[in-house]
Amino acid sequence: MRYELFYWPTVQGRGEFVRLALEDAGADYVDVARLPEGSGGGEAALLQWMHDPPVGHPSFAPPFLKAGRRLIGQTANILLFLGPRLGLAPRDETGRLWTHQLQLTFSDLVAEIHDSHHPIAGSLYYEDQRDEAKRRSASLRRERLPKYLGYFERVLADNARGRQRCLVGSAVTHADLSLFQVIAGLRYAFPRAMRRLEPSLPLCVALHERIGARPRIASYLASTRRIPFNNDGIFRRYPELDA
Amino acid sequence: MRYELFYWPTVQGRGEFVRLALEDAGADYVDVARLPEGSGGGEAALLQWMHDPPVGHPSFAPPFLKAGRRLIGQTANILLFLGPRLGLAPRDETGRLWTHQLQLTFSDLVAEIHDSHHPIAGSLYYEDQRDEAKRRSASLRRERLPKYLGYFERVLADNARGRQRCLVGSAVTHADLSLFQVIAGLRYAFPRAMRRLEPSLPLCVALHERIGARPRIASYLASTRRIPFNNDGIFRRYPELDA
Repeated sequence: MRYELFYWPTVQGRGEFVRLALEDAGADYVDVARLPEGSGGGEAALLQWMHDPPVGHPSFAPPFLKAGRRLIGQTANILLFLGPRLGLAPRDETGRLWTHQLQLTFSDLVAEIHDSHHPIAGSLYYEDQRDEAKRRSASLRRERLPKYLGYFERVLADNARGRQRCLVGSAVTHADLSLFQVIAGLRYAFPRAMRRLEPSLPLCVALHERIGARPRIASYLASTRRIPFNNDGIFRRYPELDA
Repeated sequence: MRYELFYWPTVQGRGEFVRLALEDAGADYVDVARLPEGSGGGEAALLQWMHDPPVGHPSFAPPFLKAGRRLIGQTANILLFLGPRLGLAPRDETGRLWTHQLQLTFSDLVAEIHDSHHPIAGSLYYEDQRDEAKRRSASLRRERLPKYLGYFERVLADNARGRQRCLVGSAVTHADLSLFQVIAGLRYAFPRAMRRLEPSLPLCVALHERIGARPRIASYLASTRRIPFNNDGIFRRYPELDA
């Protein structure tokens, strides 16, 4: 099946967690809004499928995925659907629920990272909430990142199955790909804070390295399909927020 | 099966979305942290099962649910598990994914409502971020609530199945119970804003009324099991944020 991913065409954002799963599995997919408008792409297609999808089930926000006649929104929900189909989730219900629980915890972390540069309103410019962003980022760096990343470190430590340690069971899941993306993004956005934090996160750092070296992921990261980090996405580099 | 719910004992919070599902289904459950410490309850039990659960799969935060030997965290994930078991979700995969997508959109809305009174840090007092909370609440009232609630109103309008309109298919799901809770909470926290908004949300308002009148829900709401809204939870009444 050819999957159709709908997401903003110029940022990694939340869509990247889905792109990484599709890329790692070598799935057949189209990143619809990155196609030219003349080929049915662009933001026009994204917005039309968000507000008035011909198959029903409109999404509140991107990303969403078209799979046959299904339209599925919410990042973690898309991965819940794709996981077993792409070989990136356990087959049993207990394993799937646990993997999904971790994915939802990544969703929470990503929302907090976003709000560190937009603590007042997504509709305002960063410059109009910079003072508040400084306060919120300080809390993110000092309290929230150690707590979240320490949690994932502990989950890795608890899971002794498999020669190469991952978050769930003995095989890579979409949760591992998401941990890779979070570490990569945080290194971009908060290089100083991460240099201080990483010595206490050896298992997270090792997993990030192993995921980045997987052949399909390495090839994706080196391709033009990987949009570079930039200051329109979730992970933004404002040095004053990484003081 | 007797379910064991772990959540803070003095607030509705995110746990209330699970409580409502258990109550509506007449499920056998224990609200562990509301039991006396001498009976294995209290916050001590909550914290022990969060940080070091004997069955593994620790949660980042409450709520979490013990079901037999399983421990399941993240509000929407708990409802994904309970939905089919309590008769509160469709049986087919497409219907379950759509219901879960709506539930995750409620999770996003609830996080934004929380941050309207804590835009800088959950670890700071409200009084230490009141100015920022005023700015963020203005955005919540003027932009985000109309957008989110308008979305759910539209989903209700699109779903013409069933004599009594609900969000998914023709029977009540946990998503409908969550819409009930969100409307109830917003009326508590933002009575002025809701008086302005509700005329444009007739289907949401009607659904809230129907859910509140379901016998088991009405009985629950009238009982001491329903913790009253208060200014320690997600929905808080600070008149200056509802100006």
